Amino acid sequence: MKHSFGSDNHSGVHPTIMEAILNENKEFATAYGEDNYTRSVLNKLEDLLGGNCTAFFVFNGTGANIVALQGFLRSYNSVLAPATAHINVDECGAVEKISASRIIPLDAPDGKVTPEEVKKGLTGFGFQHHAQPKILSISQPTELGTNYTPEEIKELADLMHSHGCYLHVDGSRISNAAESLGLPIKSFINDCGVDALSFGGTKNGLLMGEAVVIFHRPENTLPDSNGLPMNIQNMEAAKNLQYLRKQTTQLYSKSRFIAAQFEAYLKDDLYLKLAGQSNSMAKYLAESLKGIPEVEISKSVDSNAVFAIIPLWIGEELHKKHYFYVWDETTNEVRWMCSFNTTKEDIDLFVADVKEIILQHNK
Amino acid sequence: MKHSFGSDNHSGVHPTIMEAILNENKEFATAYGEDNYTRSVLNKLEDLLGGNCTAFFVFNGTGANIVALQGFLRSYNSVLAPATAHINVDECGAVEKISASRIIPLDAPDGKVTPEEVKKGLTGFGFQHHAQPKILSISQPTELGTNYTPEEIKELADLMHSHGCYLHVDGSRISNAAESLGLPIKSFINDCGVDALSFGGTKNGLLMGEAVVIFHRPENTLPDSNGLPMNIQNMEAAKNLQYLRKQTTQLYSKSRFIAAQFEAYLKDDLYLKLAGQSNSMAKYLAESLKGIPEVEISKSVDSNAVFAIIPLWIGEELHKKHYFYVWDETTNEVRWMCSFNTTKEDIDLFVADVKEIILQHNK
Amino acid sequence: MKHSFGSDNHSGVHPTIMEAILNENKEFATAYGEDNYTRSVLNKLEDLLGGNCTAFFVFNGTGANIVALQGFLRSYNSVLAPATAHINVDECGAVEKISASRIIPLDAPDGKVTPEEVKKGLTGFGFQHHAQPKILSISQPTELGTNYTPEEIKELADLMHSHGCYLHVDGSRISNAAESLGLPIKSFINDCGVDALSFGGTKNGLLMGEAVVIFHRPENTLPDSNGLPMNIQNMEAAKNLQYLRKQTTQLYSKSRFIAAQFEAYLKDDLYLKLAGQSNSMAKYLAESLKGIPEVEISKSVDSNAVFAIIPLWIGEELHKKHYFYVWDETTNEVRWMCSFNTTKEDIDLFVADVKEIILQHNK
Amino acid sequence: MKHSFGSDNHSGVHPTIMEAILNENKEFATAYGEDNYTRSVLNKLEDLLGGNCTAFFVFNGTGANIVALQGFLRSYNSVLAPATAHINVDECGAVEKISASRIIPLDAPDGKVTPEEVKKGLTGFGFQHHAQPKILSISQPTELGTNYTPEEIKELADLMHSHGCYLHVDGSRISNAAESLGLPIKSFINDCGVDALSFGGTKNGLLMGEAVVIFHRPENTLPDSNGLPMNIQNMEAAKNLQYLRKQTTQLYSKSRFIAAQFEAYLKDDLYLKLAGQSNSMAKYLAESLKGIPEVEISKSVDSNAVFAIIPLWIGEELHKKHYFYVWDETTNEVRWMCSFNTTKEDIDLFVADVKEIILQHNK
Repeated sequence: MKHSFGSDNHSGVHPTIMEAILNENKEFATAYGEDNYTRSVLNKLEDLLGGNCTAFFVFNGTGANIVALQGFLRSYNSVLAPATAHINVDECGAVEKISASRIIPLDAPDGKVTPEEVKKGLTGFGFQHHAQPKILSISQPTELGTNYTPEEIKELADLMHSHGCYLHVDGSRISNAAESLGLPIKSFINDCGVDALSFGGTKNGLLMGEAVVIFHRPENTLPDSNGLPMNIQNMEAAKNLQYLRKQTTQLYSKSRFIAAQFEAYLKDDLYLKLAGQSNSMAKYLAESLKGIPEVEISKSVDSNAVFAIIPLWIGEELHKKHYFYVWDETTNEVRWMCSFNTTKEDIDLFVADVKEIILQHNK
Repeated sequence: MKHSFGSDNHSGVHPTIMEAILNENKEFATAYGEDNYTRSVLNKLEDLLGGNCTAFFVFNGTGANIVALQGFLRSYNSVLAPATAHINVDECGAVEKISASRIIPLDAPDGKVTPEEVKKGLTGFGFQHHAQPKILSISQPTELGTNYTPEEIKELADLMHSHGCYLHVDGSRISNAAESLGLPIKSFINDCGVDALSFGGTKNGLLMGEAVVIFHRPENTLPDSNGLPMNIQNMEAAKNLQYLRKQTTQLYSKSRFIAAQFEAYLKDDLYLKLAGQSNSMAKYLAESLKGIPEVEISKSVDSNAVFAIIPLWIGEELHKKHYFYVWDETTNEVRWMCSFNTTKEDIDLFVADVKEIILQHNK
Repeated sequence: MKHSFGSDNHSGVHPTIMEAILNENKEFATAYGEDNYTRSVLNKLEDLLGGNCTAFFVFNGTGANIVALQGFLRSYNSVLAPATAHINVDECGAVEKISASRIIPLDAPDGKVTPEEVKKGLTGFGFQHHAQPKILSISQPTELGTNYTPEEIKELADLMHSHGCYLHVDGSRISNAAESLGLPIKSFINDCGVDALSFGGTKNGLLMGEAVVIFHRPENTLPDSNGLPMNIQNMEAAKNLQYLRKQTTQLYSKSRFIAAQFEAYLKDDLYLKLAGQSNSMAKYLAESLKGIPEVEISKSVDSNAVFAIIPLWIGEELHKKHYFYVWDETTNEVRWMCSFNTTKEDIDLFVADVKEIILQHNK
Repeated sequence: MKHSFGSDNHSGVHPTIMEAILNENKEFATAYGEDNYTRSVLNKLEDLLGGNCTAFFVFNGTGANIVALQGFLRSYNSVLAPATAHINVDECGAVEKISASRIIPLDAPDGKVTPEEVKKGLTGFGFQHHAQPKILSISQPTELGTNYTPEEIKELADLMHSHGCYLHVDGSRISNAAESLGLPIKSFINDCGVDALSFGGTKNGLLMGEAVVIFHRPENTLPDSNGLPMNIQNMEAAKNLQYLRKQTTQLYSKSRFIAAQFEAYLKDDLYLKLAGQSNSMAKYLAESLKGIPEVEISKSVDSNAVFAIIPLWIGEELHKKHYFYVWDETTNEVRWMCSFNTTKEDIDLFVADVKEIILQHNK
């Protein structure tokens, strides 16, 4: 297929990333991430994020989220998450199966949760019949393409910490958020008090590979809701995540080939450049559709996704020529996702097709 | 590192495999294995195995084993396995965590279990205080480099079936067994009654990628130990493995890049050629060491591993120049693993070093 | 405490039940439910329910629910349940922990779900990213004291079966439903197509003891959503529930002492008589409060619970003299639960106190 | 059945215990252990054990063990236990299912493990492929009727603590050990450094009821194998065990009826008196069989069990008149268990039957 708006994982691998894999394929290396090279690239990633953290490579996004969350969860804890979160909607109950904890879904019409909504889930502490809230998992950008501001993230982190709880960020498209906000990832993650991050790569031009990052947060010395000092909990998670990764089947033997991709990805800000392309294509698509009354852009285009409400007849015709998903069948909302290798020509062609469909229909 | 005898996953990726990845990286494709290309390669794999089976791609060997076993297990079942099995020794308790079932380890001095030993684990049926035996998991070749004959596998499959139980084969090095036995994989797996197979690739020149294969076994209509007709159990496993794969975090978004590797791997018997190289290098190594009284080859060299008992002083000196693992510290048994890209020169150099160490020591 | 409206498990044990325990305490008996006496009482319970079912004793209600549901669940399945269900609200995430499945909560303003609401949860079949719906769990009577009619239960059972799914009834107060409906339990459970029942005792005068009942449903031969013929799934659950009970720590060594209670409970319809007392006391309470404008009975009084919305000042004063729980702090809704040993005098005293509080307040 | 040597849970309930239940059945009380009475009895139990501990009531022994162990385990940890341990042999894989951890069985010919044997399991620390050892679970007395001395328990506790690990004691018959050793339980549990205790009642005359006790061990400030200071781990277990109990379905609504039994059980050392009777009957049985060459007492009779190796023909005849279990079919070892209400007459009758069988046989 020439191009797909279906998902940014319909795209392939960026040539620079591919070259990095090829270059790494020259000698033998010890396996399971115990080679020096893997460690050196993890160091670079930790530095990029402001240090005081420990990073681990994993295969995929679901793996990253599940491994990260397990670092903080005991079976009697619960995970708060927007109802729209990938862990709540699209991971087939993996959180419940593997962490044995339950998810408490929160209202989030545009993919973002507000402190007021989170507070509704921060209840039942000390009540033996209720799962005990332990961590909030948000996505940045959200599954609906919107971004939290650093202030909003900090407010959520502070709220969670003040209740002895933690904050996880599902950053499967974290580079898109950084590029869109024009801010280093560090500034809206580590600096805002985030405890754990799923750092994505696959959706932005990698063959495969994500990282789990646990932030040490030595400053958080108050007891958490389970009774552990928060900094001790974070340290414990960082120390033992390797076992949870192995048990969760996310330990890669030829780990250096993820490391090589990440080295190339971080070098010369390639991750931002690729995100810049998909972000700008999404903006260009939204711009190009402006003024067409049949197409209503329904969510703020903060990253590389465009959500729109269109009449059924447009959707049906458009599906014959372009690949994309209906997001909500009850409202005819569709999602058009741009990739690192989506081009202006892809957009122009798509918009021309939309216009042509409307023209034919209105005849 | 120029060369490692540490593991066959210390080696890199075979050029033909790498080229297949590059060739696949040209267009967009739907994700999560739902593209036609992935399906077409799975069909080829299923054909190679004799048909009447369903194959699924996963990331790694632990993932393959855990996903395969879950297809047959309820929490109150147990898995019988040689004490030396990878699932028992090297997967950090992943079976117990993810399947909720326990492993019953069986004696297997050379990595292989006998029917007599298996029968010791086939007890407690119907006794509510005991986990109910459900599946035997063997490795072919074993973790100690030995092979089962087809007759031996058939005998184990028949034994398990006659008790309403199943047989899984961990084939992380299945190509090495096939090449060594000089037999098609089908003939000692599907034809012998195996119910589930972990079909390895990573250890034989792939970047990453394994397959889980469930055999349908329509002929097995007797009830299993849980009371289901065996063919219905196998069908149920085949139908639902996709959900277990997703929950176990083993579903790869850009699945076509495993498919591409497998297509190249199966084409022109590349999988056998690569296994042939590592097998023959292991044999050559064992041959070259014959006649050195200080080195005792301790296991039958049926595949690409050489096990030997050597004096501590040889081991210590040899570790300065070569990478390999001590298998059993109590007996000074070491493992030298050959890879698809191990060369005669690598072996000659290694043997020369062994001889030189002995020479220096005996001075 | 002389009397409590807090819960029907604040009450003690009915004298006839206690006597049955005493009478059973005369000889030795084999343990773990393998004595003939336990089996004979289970037979009586199975007969009461219309036969074609298998019953198991367990300790408590949470145990009954979790054991029953596990009979039908694989980790990738989901349980549909009213948001108000005990398994969703008050079991500390036990379903998720022990069955590894997730709960999909459904809207149920008065504790009952409608077929329309259930259909909203019957989606995502065959979609590998979603947990697969498998069983609906309703409570009869509901946690809000309301009853389903037999027709409503049959409609839900038919709906679930038509989607290859099952119906579980949490009957921790099932005797209250039977007495209130004036119908044998069989007629609104077995006759309506229910697949599994938690049959309660503790809340209606037992010391402790509940039963899990699996209905065989030989008539349901269509494949379920996992691909098993439904009658084979039910048979499998009935056959293997003993292991799930043991693993879930719900197997009682001195099982005959639950059997003795159940024998006395079923004899001469004691279970209906006790439920009749708590039901009629709830009705009498609701009647007695009628005409007091400050007290609004907020739910239909179908069993032994009275829900009411009262001003905060009544609640506060009333709490000084009577034990009961605030059900919903946002609406000032309280729950007054009657027990098998609640008396007319208890009610009269309570109502007099309500009236006195209002009188003092209005002075 | 008049008498059974099958198990001490074949016996019924001691009259004093039954009376305590009757006496408690007079009023209403809040449920789920939140009544003052339950708390007051737990205080008495904690005092008996030397204080600095937190006790929780549960239904049964499997529940006690599983809840206690979960307090210390993360899924990647392992439990070391004698191969003969109840958790390893007779709990249907409940540890693996509910804690998600694996059990590492240790050799224990007479039911007791030695420090040397335990050390064999204390390996693999820091190796990401291996489950990380965390706790040793021993039984006192053991399943083979033998006792550890206080010195032996202290040595095991010290060994575990020196490796950053913990010690759990399955004390389903703890009163028998105390009575046999002539020592207060405190002296060989709390004083020896034990971290968690399952305190049994059901096997020694209770209707049902056990306690889980977590010792606080403020003196253990070194980091454990997971990286937590040991005293913080114990505190965390004590604080959160209530949630694990609830999730494990072991929270009893009418908790006061276990409390009442325990109050009577501890009062005037009833627990020791009942254990004294079963212990002395076991001794009397062993004494009475001395001098019969066909009967070989095979284990030290430290508590209320007598193990013996007898010819098959004795066993077969004896089974016609008396209830008991063959422990090991391969060696013809049988177990005769005495209860709190086993009498001298029961023993005399049994021994006479043994003698008669031999007499008839030798004719």
